[in-house]
Amino acid sequence: MLEKRNPIPVAEAIQKVMLYAREGEKERVPLTEAYGRYLAEDLYADHDVPPFDRSPYDGFAIRAADSALASLDHPVELEVIETIGAGQVAAKAVAAFQAVRIMTGAPIPDGCDAVVMLELAKQYERNGKTYISIKRPFRSGDNISFQGEDVKKGEVLAEKGTFINPGVQALLATFGYSEVKVAQKPKIGIAATGNELLDVSEPLVPGKIRNSNAYMIQAQVLRSGATPVDLGKLPDDPDQCLAAIEQALPDVDFLITTGGVSVGDYDYLPVIYERLGAEVLFNKVAMRPGSVTTVAQLDGKLLFGLSGNPSACYVGYELFVRPVVRTMLYSSTPHLYKTKAILLEDFTKPNPFTRFVRSYVSAQGGQLYASPVGMDKSNIVTSLAKANALTVLPGGTRGFVKGDLVDVWLLDSEEGSAQ
Amino acid sequence: MLEKRNPIPVAEAIQKVMLYAREGEKERVPLTEAYGRYLAEDLYADHDVPPFDRSPYDGFAIRAADSALASLDHPVELEVIETIGAGQVAAKAVAAFQAVRIMTGAPIPDGCDAVVMLELAKQYERNGKTYISIKRPFRSGDNISFQGEDVKKGEVLAEKGTFINPGVQALLATFGYSEVKVAQKPKIGIAATGNELLDVSEPLVPGKIRNSNAYMIQAQVLRSGATPVDLGKLPDDPDQCLAAIEQALPDVDFLITTGGVSVGDYDYLPVIYERLGAEVLFNKVAMRPGSVTTVAQLDGKLLFGLSGNPSACYVGYELFVRPVVRTMLYSSTPHLYKTKAILLEDFTKPNPFTRFVRSYVSAQGGQLYASPVGMDKSNIVTSLAKANALTVLPGGTRGFVKGDLVDVWLLDSEEGSAQ
Repeated sequence: MLEKRNPIPVAEAIQKVMLYAREGEKERVPLTEAYGRYLAEDLYADHDVPPFDRSPYDGFAIRAADSALASLDHPVELEVIETIGAGQVAAKAVAAFQAVRIMTGAPIPDGCDAVVMLELAKQYERNGKTYISIKRPFRSGDNISFQGEDVKKGEVLAEKGTFINPGVQALLATFGYSEVKVAQKPKIGIAATGNELLDVSEPLVPGKIRNSNAYMIQAQVLRSGATPVDLGKLPDDPDQCLAAIEQALPDVDFLITTGGVSVGDYDYLPVIYERLGAEVLFNKVAMRPGSVTTVAQLDGKLLFGLSGNPSACYVGYELFVRPVVRTMLYSSTPHLYKTKAILLEDFTKPNPFTRFVRSYVSAQGGQLYASPVGMDKSNIVTSLAKANALTVLPGGTRGFVKGDLVDVWLLDSEEGSAQ
Repeated sequence: MLEKRNPIPVAEAIQKVMLYAREGEKERVPLTEAYGRYLAEDLYADHDVPPFDRSPYDGFAIRAADSALASLDHPVELEVIETIGAGQVAAKAVAAFQAVRIMTGAPIPDGCDAVVMLELAKQYERNGKTYISIKRPFRSGDNISFQGEDVKKGEVLAEKGTFINPGVQALLATFGYSEVKVAQKPKIGIAATGNELLDVSEPLVPGKIRNSNAYMIQAQVLRSGATPVDLGKLPDDPDQCLAAIEQALPDVDFLITTGGVSVGDYDYLPVIYERLGAEVLFNKVAMRPGSVTTVAQLDGKLLFGLSGNPSACYVGYELFVRPVVRTMLYSSTPHLYKTKAILLEDFTKPNPFTRFVRSYVSAQGGQLYASPVGMDKSNIVTSLAKANALTVLPGGTRGFVKGDLVDVWLLDSEEGSAQ
């Protein structure tokens, strides 16, 4: 009656899932809706930046040669023949010892090759004409932002898969992307199992708990860049359950179920997978929490059977679902961002399985520190709210002590890791 | 003609703005829309967790005293009188040397005080009755998750201002928050100034550039948790401009303008502030980029005059607007998350003003490192896309060299700093 399962290492389990990861579809959105999405194509420059030689300051555009002999004792006088603002173009030709009053961002008039900042020029009128005097020489090119010095036309500025942050949004605007090709959001079906589950709006009754996993996963789906599709609670009857899943599958990219994957009498997901004709990739992983995490595939579509235990469910999503979501979003670094931190508490209990300890990582003086949050019992929901990382303690070791440098996988980082 | 401005230190400028920061309004949203919002009220437990003594494993609930003499040589036999799944409650009273088959999450039957895991019990049938034998003693409380051991009813689990991440969402579900009181998103009007600005969909023409700041700020507004209100481009005429601002103000919590705050002939924001009757809090900050950043207040409503230079505009938002937004969202840590990192490049040029260097901070071996991204010329838009931090180099120093531990303010962190 008690099914024997063979636990596989975490890395191997992730690898098995990633065999089915593929890039997703694209869609066009207006630039005003691009923030927070992922580029589905490389972003390239449609013009040089700056697009023309321009002034970075308010001041006067001059011919540098005219200023060659300027000094404190012998200022050089230039006639100001025109004023141009940003967005305007000089109308007149600039001759020897002439200058143009120029605003920040305005194009350098033909013939001029330097800009004198406003505060370095003394301006005055004489006989109805405007003059400036300058007391030092300028070299050709002084105070000019040259065409293309920031970006050359055709340059790739951000690769597909890039998260559209405010800086990328600015680039998109600069280069005329009034519409942006972004990755379509994968649709992820979420179904809960468990006779003990009440909906969030139901009052508590003896023996029952509210369904928190579905709401938690929904938020994890959103955080990872996908769209949750709420499939409610699966019916208790295997036939109805099978029918519900078969009906839901065509409309989603992945299906997540929570609960029902253990070896208890009421854990019927293994039966469902069998009746669906799905191939089970693994049904036991050498990790805590989440050892019963089960993943199957049906015609290349992944079915994630996450544990009904909230912490195990949470970890299962981040380890196995997030990377396939991010791959659909064109990321080349689809896994959680991996780094190291100094452990702030002892973890001396040896464990044959790799532990994923919900942790809060903080930076002090440029050094990262990891504090486990709450007791690490896998049924504690409250610690998830404060965790921003998983501390990864490999199995088969003698435990870890305060001060050890340990692996941490960051949960909130928009960046990821390739492996 | 050249107005003299008195630069104030960055910290003082921030302080002057924060005098006008206030908490915002609240609204109710369904739990399914709560992810990514901010709690407007403390989240407290409406019941103990676990809500009853329950089994963390599949197994058998027993009376521990019955197992006192169990050993390998002298197993103890118990009669299994009932089976209860999660969500069910035991119907029978358990007498001496009786046990109940129990599933993960099910309530411990009255009279039982320990759980034997499935794999530690040998189960068999005899005369139509089910028995188990166990080969070791159990103590009272073994393998029981006790009522309230995770959370006690009434406990505050997350304070107002908390960002609703997947873990908080799980808590909200667990404690029956089918609707959640969240902070209303502040509405921020964004208007661009500058005759040189083309809309993103317009083709480039000589002397003009596309308006990237409005789109960048729009994304910054979203990242900080607020709602952007696009007010387009301000008209060139001061009267029309004044009218446009007066019309927009009642509908927004803050107004941001980009450009027009410098001392050029076409920088008319100072005039507008004067005609509005707004009090200018400062119009020069001892920082680069963004020294011309101007902030005014009118009847307590903040008017942010950010520089038209993209990098200065970006920094101005994060330093001055973000903390007032986060304060409206009830955060007690409204400023950018501040920490330190090891500088990976020399910055030997001394500067009287504090520099905010767009940087990429990475973690290697538990240590944070800061690399400036792109050349640090304030008119370079491309480096903003890759920046995830501002390296802060105080003015009045002799410069910084590779290997120095410097201040970094993180841009993408959901967390913040109190100061």
